[in-house]
Formats: sequence, structure tokens, C-alpha cells
Amino acid sequence: MTFSVTVLGSSSALPTSSRYPTAHLLNANERFFLIDCGEGTQIQLRKFKFRLLKINHIFISHLHGDHYFGLFGLLSSLSLLGRTNDLHIFAHSDLEDILNFQFKYYDLGFKLVFHPIKNNFAGILFEDKQLIVSTFPLKHRITSNGFIFQEKQKDKNLIKEMVQFYQLGIKDILKIKQGEDFVDKEGRLIPNSRLTIPSYKPRSYAFCSDTAFAPSIVKHIHGVDLLYHESTFTDALIKRAEETGHSTARQAAEIAKMANVKKLLLGHFSARYKDLSIFKNEAIEVFDNSEIVNEGQTYEIELQRDNIINKTDAG
Amino acid sequence: MTFSVTVLGSSSALPTSSRYPTAHLLNANERFFLIDCGEGTQIQLRKFKFRLLKINHIFISHLHGDHYFGLFGLLSSLSLLGRTNDLHIFAHSDLEDILNFQFKYYDLGFKLVFHPIKNNFAGILFEDKQLIVSTFPLKHRITSNGFIFQEKQKDKNLIKEMVQFYQLGIKDILKIKQGEDFVDKEGRLIPNSRLTIPSYKPRSYAFCSDTAFAPSIVKHIHGVDLLYHESTFTDALIKRAEETGHSTARQAAEIAKMANVKKLLLGHFSARYKDLSIFKNEAIEVFDNSEIVNEGQTYEIELQRDNIINKTDAG
Repeated sequence: MTFSVTVLGSSSALPTSSRYPTAHLLNANERFFLIDCGEGTQIQLRKFKFRLLKINHIFISHLHGDHYFGLFGLLSSLSLLGRTNDLHIFAHSDLEDILNFQFKYYDLGFKLVFHPIKNNFAGILFEDKQLIVSTFPLKHRITSNGFIFQEKQKDKNLIKEMVQFYQLGIKDILKIKQGEDFVDKEGRLIPNSRLTIPSYKPRSYAFCSDTAFAPSIVKHIHGVDLLYHESTFTDALIKRAEETGHSTARQAAEIAKMANVKKLLLGHFSARYKDLSIFKNEAIEVFDNSEIVNEGQTYEIELQRDNIINKTDAG
Repeated sequence: MTFSVTVLGSSSALPTSSRYPTAHLLNANERFFLIDCGEGTQIQLRKFKFRLLKINHIFISHLHGDHYFGLFGLLSSLSLLGRTNDLHIFAHSDLEDILNFQFKYYDLGFKLVFHPIKNNFAGILFEDKQLIVSTFPLKHRITSNGFIFQEKQKDKNLIKEMVQFYQLGIKDILKIKQGEDFVDKEGRLIPNSRLTIPSYKPRSYAFCSDTAFAPSIVKHIHGVDLLYHESTFTDALIKRAEETGHSTARQAAEIAKMANVKKLLLGHFSARYKDLSIFKNEAIEVFDNSEIVNEGQTYEIELQRDNIINKTDAG
């Protein structure tokens, strides 16, 4: 039951000799969601041993080239690899025009299913049995979207021995798994906490691509396990950050603190910085659990039982 | 007086974890000419310590994505780096439409001067005091162009001591440098070979991008110092090569032999090959001075005095 993010690119618009433009890969139980696709994303995916054909959903935050120029090559390669399954792309509607133009004389061999994101839309983009993906507006020079990937709450786990002990039927079991108490033949109420152990807590990852400091996003990302927030500059260049619609490491940490997230990942570093430790140092003054992303590294969110339920369970 | 080629990408359409799509950088006396620009070219340029802003001319062989998808990112980066000088692009006219579409809402801050190459055109694309760049048609699934970069013949070098010895005037010197003999005051003919040493022999590099086996190109590349010729497959897959408009290593070597070139570089390897030594082994059976390209390696063509003139000079 993996829930992890691998960072494929950590540079801002100008890549460096060692840092690629933005792309993250979310692995939700061996389903792969690509988030942004800067130039060279397919090369990074191969370098870090991911299979391109496993990606079925791509989310593009905004239409600055360093966040989508890798799509052309990736889609071409998927075609060469013989893909036939639909590929779903969630992005501003202009991207559909761009891809249609680029591939107008080229039969990819598979269908691009385009899901346009309307300006200022906040809400669900994708949902299935296991996962919900939502979006919310960031604050950048052009329309830019943040994304939240959130596991769904699973049913409680029934303690096996209880089935025989209380002679539970299938209907009883389904109700108990959804949290109901049980009344036995003698009319005694058996509290749910005696019959079940809590399911794992749903895990969540928020991706805040290019954005100026924007407290308006806090309500959308509140309490996530892992927050990626851009930090193109350090506080010494806060004016430059404001002018260009970007954030400093300190500002990213302030957002993380306000949103009470568990952990903060910093990325999208300006090419002018050789030593990135300054970003971490600046952030941890505000929010202790801050880390600078490392290309190729996978950030795993561990499974945890819900704390509150755990407490009941222990009693 | 450098004349060298650095190979930035050696893979065919599907890049691998260690091989980028096609791009070569020609350094002609510290002027830099980019030939093809696959995805990730700007990243490779930075990795190998080339300054992006030094490139003023880009030649694109054909409009398959693995030969031009890197242009979007490269042009964006040049813009971010503050380029103001014109950038010259030589390619099929469709590329102009593609770039205009991509950058229609984006002011690069410098001018793209587009030089369209007509279908089946063979001739000079670019010429200045030092260099001539020509093109010729290759044989591929779509219009595809080869390029030849050729230094111009320099004037002969006058032996300094002769100026005083024969009391040469400026007009005499100019004529002698261009190869004329000299008649002194006593009416004696002094042969040019006594007055000069030959200039260096003009060096040449031919780039044969995606092409099927095509003896029709031999006349265009005859006698070049360095020939790059694609070899996507080995002879075991000659049928596949024919179907896809590509060449095998043996076929590339046959072209090199027919064209009597000095050295052959093989590249554009299909992703299916892990060990590339098979390409070299196959080629050297036909043409001994064959080498497989190595990304990041620079292939220098050394300065040489013209052999024939040297002979005269020694007499």
C-alpha cells in the first residue's frame, strides 16, 4: 500500500547542469500519477526506473514551459512504446490546443482524454475507489493550479475472532466495518471499538506549483501529510519573488505552519543558487519538518492508524 | 582554430536512461552551430559546460520530435538569459509555424530569423568569411536534410623572409598569397612555392541525420574529414531499417567508404541495444576508421597542411 512521491525535477524555469525542471510522480498503491512534466521528464523517469506506460493520469499546474515542455517527448515515446490505453490529462484548456497543434499530423495510437480546469476552480478533478484528486487556484503570473491527492477512508478492520464470538452475519459485518455498534441476541450493545481495529488513516499529498505567498491556499491544504511548496528564492530576494509570482523558502514554511501540515518539501530553486542548504535553514526557522527535494528521491508517507481511534482501541 | 563536434545525444526516437535524443554542437573557431535539438539539449549543453548564449545558428534536419522538441526549452531559456541577438534557424518551413504557435503569447525578447529549406534543395544555406554550410536531401519517411560544414580555403602564408629578399610591395604580397608566382626586377620568375607555405587545409564535417541507405548522398559528402551517419540498427534488423527509413551500421560504413571520408561517427542507436560495440564491430568490417559516438565527447578535426602543396613545397 504505497503512497509516495518521487521528485523528478527541482529547478525553476532555467534548468542547471544537475537540476531538471518540475515533475513529480505520485505512486498511489502502484498507480502512477504524473504531476507537471518539464523538459526531460521522460529521461528522468527512465533513469529512476519507472515504466512510462504505467502512467495513466497527468496533471499540469500551469502553462509555463518548464512545467509542460516534456509532454511532447513523453507522448511521442508512449506512442512508440505501443500504448493503446487512454491517457487522461488535467490542465488549463489551452494545453489541449497546444497538443492538438503539435500532434495534428501524427497519430499517437491512443486517445488523449482532456479534462480542462476552469479558471479559479476549486474542487474535485478525479475520483475512484481509492483516491480523490482536487485542485485549487494558486497565485501566479498566469492561471496556476495546486493539486491534492488524498486516499479515501477505508472501512474499519473487523477483528476476526469477533465473528465467531458474536456469531456475526454478513449484514452485521458490513455495518460494523462502517463504524456501527452491534446489539447481540441478548440485547447487549457491543461498542464498535471492541469489534474492530481502525483502518489506516487516509494519506494526502499537496502539490503547490508556481505561486506567490498566498494564505488563501491554506484552507485547501490544511493538515496534509506532505506538502510540496515551491521556494524559488530565499528571503534576501523577496522583492524578486513578489515581482515574478514566486515564494521564498520562509514564505513556503509559513504556509506549511499555517496549514498545520506534517512535512514540507521545498523545490523549484532558481538556477542562481549552487548550495541549496540555505533554503532548508531558512524554512526550519519557521517550520521544523522542512526538507529540500532531491531529484530521484522518493518521499514515502507511511501507513498510520488514526490516532484518536487508536486511543479508544487501547482502552 | 578549433573545428570540432560535440555529441550531445546519441539515441534514436526513444531516449534511454543514459542516451539523449539527437543534438550535435559544431565549434568552428569558437563560433557555435547547433545541429538538431532533441529534448534535453539545453540540459546537455549545460552539463558539458557550453554557454547557451554563444549559439547563433541552429540547423534542424527534420521534424520528427526527437530532433527538435528541445527547441522550446532552449529558446525559453535563451529568453530568460536575456538574449537580444537574432537567432538563425534553418529548417523545413513547418517548424516556423510550430514555433510561432508555441510562442504566440510569449515575447522571447530576441528575433528568430527563419531560413526555410525547400523540399529536395541541395546547396548553400549559410556562408561567411570562414565557413560554408550546405544541405542536401536524405531519404527518410518525411523530408530530412543532411548538412555539411566546411571551412573556406585560406590564403597561402607568405614566408616572412621573402618580403625583404625580393622587396615585395603590398600588391605583390596579396597576389602571392592567392597563389600567383612573382616576377622580380630582373624578369626572373620566382615560383609561388618558393615564396609561401600552404595554408591549412579546410576542414569539413557532414551530418547525416535520419536516413535510409542512400548512395545518392555520396556525391555531397565526398571526402569530408568527419562523417556522422545515423545507424539506428545493426544488419540483423536491416528489414526494420528499410521499413522505418533508417540505416544499419554496415550501411553507414558503406556510405563512408563510397564517399572516401576520413572518419565515420555512428549514432542514433535504437533503445533496444544495451551494448553498442556491435555497431562498431559491424562498421569496421567495411570501413576501418569507424567510431560509435559518446555523449559529451568532442571530436576534433586537426589542422593539416594540404598534402599536394606540401609536396611541391618540399622540392
